[in-house]
Amino acid sequence: MSKENASREENYSQWYNDIVIKADLAENSSVRGCMVIKPYGYSVWERMQRQLDDMFKETGHENAYFPLFIPKSFLSKEAAHVEGFAKECAVVTHYRLKNDEYGKGVIVDPDAKLEEELIIRPTSETIIWNTYRGWIQSYRDLPLLINQWANVVRWEMRTRLFLRTAEFLWQEGHTAHASADEAVEETRQMLDVYAQFAEEFMAMPVIKGVKTANERFAGAVDTYCIEAMMQDGKALQAGTSHFLGQNFAKAFDVKFTGRDGKLDYVWATSWGVSTRLMGALVMTHSDDQGLVLPPKLAPVQVIIVPIYKGDAERESVLEFCDGIFKNLKKHGIRVKVDSRDTHKPGFKFAEHEFRGVPVRIGIGPRDIQNGTVEIARRDTLEKEVLHVPDLAEKLTNLLEQIQKNLYNRAFQRRDNLTSRADTWDEFVDILDSKGGFISAHWDGTSETEERIKELTKATIRCIPLNNPMETGKCILTGQPSDQRVLFARAY
Amino acid sequence: MSKENASREENYSQWYNDIVIKADLAENSSVRGCMVIKPYGYSVWERMQRQLDDMFKETGHENAYFPLFIPKSFLSKEAAHVEGFAKECAVVTHYRLKNDEYGKGVIVDPDAKLEEELIIRPTSETIIWNTYRGWIQSYRDLPLLINQWANVVRWEMRTRLFLRTAEFLWQEGHTAHASADEAVEETRQMLDVYAQFAEEFMAMPVIKGVKTANERFAGAVDTYCIEAMMQDGKALQAGTSHFLGQNFAKAFDVKFTGRDGKLDYVWATSWGVSTRLMGALVMTHSDDQGLVLPPKLAPVQVIIVPIYKGDAERESVLEFCDGIFKNLKKHGIRVKVDSRDTHKPGFKFAEHEFRGVPVRIGIGPRDIQNGTVEIARRDTLEKEVLHVPDLAEKLTNLLEQIQKNLYNRAFQRRDNLTSRADTWDEFVDILDSKGGFISAHWDGTSETEERIKELTKATIRCIPLNNPMETGKCILTGQPSDQRVLFARAY
Repeated sequence: MSKENASREENYSQWYNDIVIKADLAENSSVRGCMVIKPYGYSVWERMQRQLDDMFKETGHENAYFPLFIPKSFLSKEAAHVEGFAKECAVVTHYRLKNDEYGKGVIVDPDAKLEEELIIRPTSETIIWNTYRGWIQSYRDLPLLINQWANVVRWEMRTRLFLRTAEFLWQEGHTAHASADEAVEETRQMLDVYAQFAEEFMAMPVIKGVKTANERFAGAVDTYCIEAMMQDGKALQAGTSHFLGQNFAKAFDVKFTGRDGKLDYVWATSWGVSTRLMGALVMTHSDDQGLVLPPKLAPVQVIIVPIYKGDAERESVLEFCDGIFKNLKKHGIRVKVDSRDTHKPGFKFAEHEFRGVPVRIGIGPRDIQNGTVEIARRDTLEKEVLHVPDLAEKLTNLLEQIQKNLYNRAFQRRDNLTSRADTWDEFVDILDSKGGFISAHWDGTSETEERIKELTKATIRCIPLNNPMETGKCILTGQPSDQRVLFARAY
Repeated sequence: MSKENASREENYSQWYNDIVIKADLAENSSVRGCMVIKPYGYSVWERMQRQLDDMFKETGHENAYFPLFIPKSFLSKEAAHVEGFAKECAVVTHYRLKNDEYGKGVIVDPDAKLEEELIIRPTSETIIWNTYRGWIQSYRDLPLLINQWANVVRWEMRTRLFLRTAEFLWQEGHTAHASADEAVEETRQMLDVYAQFAEEFMAMPVIKGVKTANERFAGAVDTYCIEAMMQDGKALQAGTSHFLGQNFAKAFDVKFTGRDGKLDYVWATSWGVSTRLMGALVMTHSDDQGLVLPPKLAPVQVIIVPIYKGDAERESVLEFCDGIFKNLKKHGIRVKVDSRDTHKPGFKFAEHEFRGVPVRIGIGPRDIQNGTVEIARRDTLEKEVLHVPDLAEKLTNLLEQIQKNLYNRAFQRRDNLTSRADTWDEFVDILDSKGGFISAHWDGTSETEERIKELTKATIRCIPLNNPMETGKCILTGQPSDQRVLFARAY
């Protein structure tokens, strides 16, 4: 199966696409830029959702749901926000179709034009803060800690499955606070939640940092982010958490009476991760044999493939498999027996390998006699023979080991792809030879950042949190700098 | 708190609206016809979702996600479907806004007109069957059992919170089968799942039946439904399951090679329930004191309200409450202590009563001395004193009892609101005096059904499954009939 697929070396971008499509994660739909998330891909996303949702609830958040539509005028209320989001968006102008008088099917009814156009939400700050005005009067109503799972639309011109699609699924947290400090604390807390999720569940190391003004969310005072490094040396922004100051409260006139009886604008945060994480997951761990999934997010952790000839063997092998299946299931392992009689074991082996199932067990008549089974790890492709009585315990440990190994491997890769540059030549050289994160001095101006982007397509991914202060000279202008920042080309 | 609210008797419609809004379930948004589902309402919906999702997975279904947008031409491919759904829908015609040259904020960019308009999905049969064409080649690919949780939009002119909104949340199952029998079986299975969910979890009795041609889903061969009866004598369609025959397979050219090697069109079903169920839940159980929630769906099953004066009492009472909280939680009860110091116990009692929390416990200093607590049931408003050592066991039983009592009460109400009519006068009389379901003979023609609707606003809710055959005369035309059908005015 994997033979027909591009390798990372040959064509990284094709390799990614092949995995997403052939591992049945997603495909392009008939609607430009919109994808179909297939059942296997969706089941991985569901596991991500469930875990994140639990983490949000543990930190005191509740879910709610706000409208898909945003009145056009709402977008204009926050000056920076409209610049960032009004450009490429889906606009609803009519609310009815009718039969064409000339028999050409259905046409838009010109009499059903909306008085004010509606925008499909590209993000929901405006509609949510317009709603919060009715919910917040006093400090007693604060903090308001709300999250929404929703679809959003940004009319991207160049799309790639999961990484950049016109419609995508995400969660957006929108919180309201009585003080700036509390809002900043929330912003940082949610950044930590994202980092913990990425590292513990996705086995994907991330760097926590803050964005420069150029890369900030439109309407934010500060944008914090987690940045991951892909195998091709390009960075990927995996999640953002914004301190919005009082910008949206002012735009939508949301005030509260404090404990001191004084009226003030409310402080805000917003934070989100999206189906883009699926793309990050694929690119972080997969290899030339296909998808590799970390056990904590794999819908099936262990796949059992029965091997037999003829009906007599079939029956005894399937029975043996079923015993193992029940035992593993009892121990909390997500296990499945692939008992399809329409496909041969070799085909099944290749298919499950390509779909990234962490552990495969092949079971034939000889295994029943010996009381042993051969297992294959997806991460290292190594095989091992295990005794049946120990199986559940051994596999439980193995799954943990695979989870750790994937994290360590990704960490090692990122480490190899992190460099320092002290001169412009060095900077350009590293970018063009191996890419990755480059820690370098920058003079702190938007102009320089913009110029570096024009020259190299590299952007400042973030100023890492707890970044050590270190005097130096900007790699482009030679102007003084008091700290290094992280550059990279990015998805 | 409840004093300010309309009673069912005074103004049923206002009573419903008061509960939805004042119990913090939902509110109208600034976008016409679209609601905001508030955290408390959403947490009830989440419990519904989780339970339904588990039941779908137990019956072999997987989740997936398809685009929000449907190309206009797709709607026209199935003749009946376009008639039913193309009329009132949100139409996306442009993909960009720009700054107005005359400084009037942002305007739609006339240069960014879509070649083909996109419709916000009112339901997803068309986009899904267009996708299935690529997924189904052979009987080996069948059955395909897929569900989607999504938002949909139908541009309703008259909207009511939960019951009829322009945007709503729902799930839509879309399955593909190799034979008509198997598809019909699936249709019926999912109807049973819905009925089981409604009765066991919502404590809402439903009648399973099949719709007449007039009331059928646009594009279906047969529409099965569950129908519930509200306290005001109006019926509410709570879920539908459609046997779609080969209509969508033909419209989107989806064929498969059978075991016999012959090519045939695929057989389809679709089935859905929506946030409308929230409206049904509210109207089935609530009373003039506010919302009443069945324990299985209540986000909080037991609320503990501490009662104290001064700091010393406060500390000991809160400590005692916490002990009870931990014990109940350990026994799997969803329990919460309302320790807000910004509100008095009386206010809290009224609030939790209005929000439908099944059991309330008030705990004061005297209770600590006596080792007893007073509990109040929301369904009957009865109070009882319980010994602390028995509390967890007693409350577990009580919650089960409340769940059953709510079902029985709703069943009894429906029974009282179900009548037989044998003449037109009787029919009209019952409709106008008490409403409810009326079992009556009908001549089987669409014309008669339409005429009865015009005259009385009553529709045929369904032909109940396993309906006894019984000869009689149509109440309107006197023509012969071979079975009674269920009429009602409906939401």
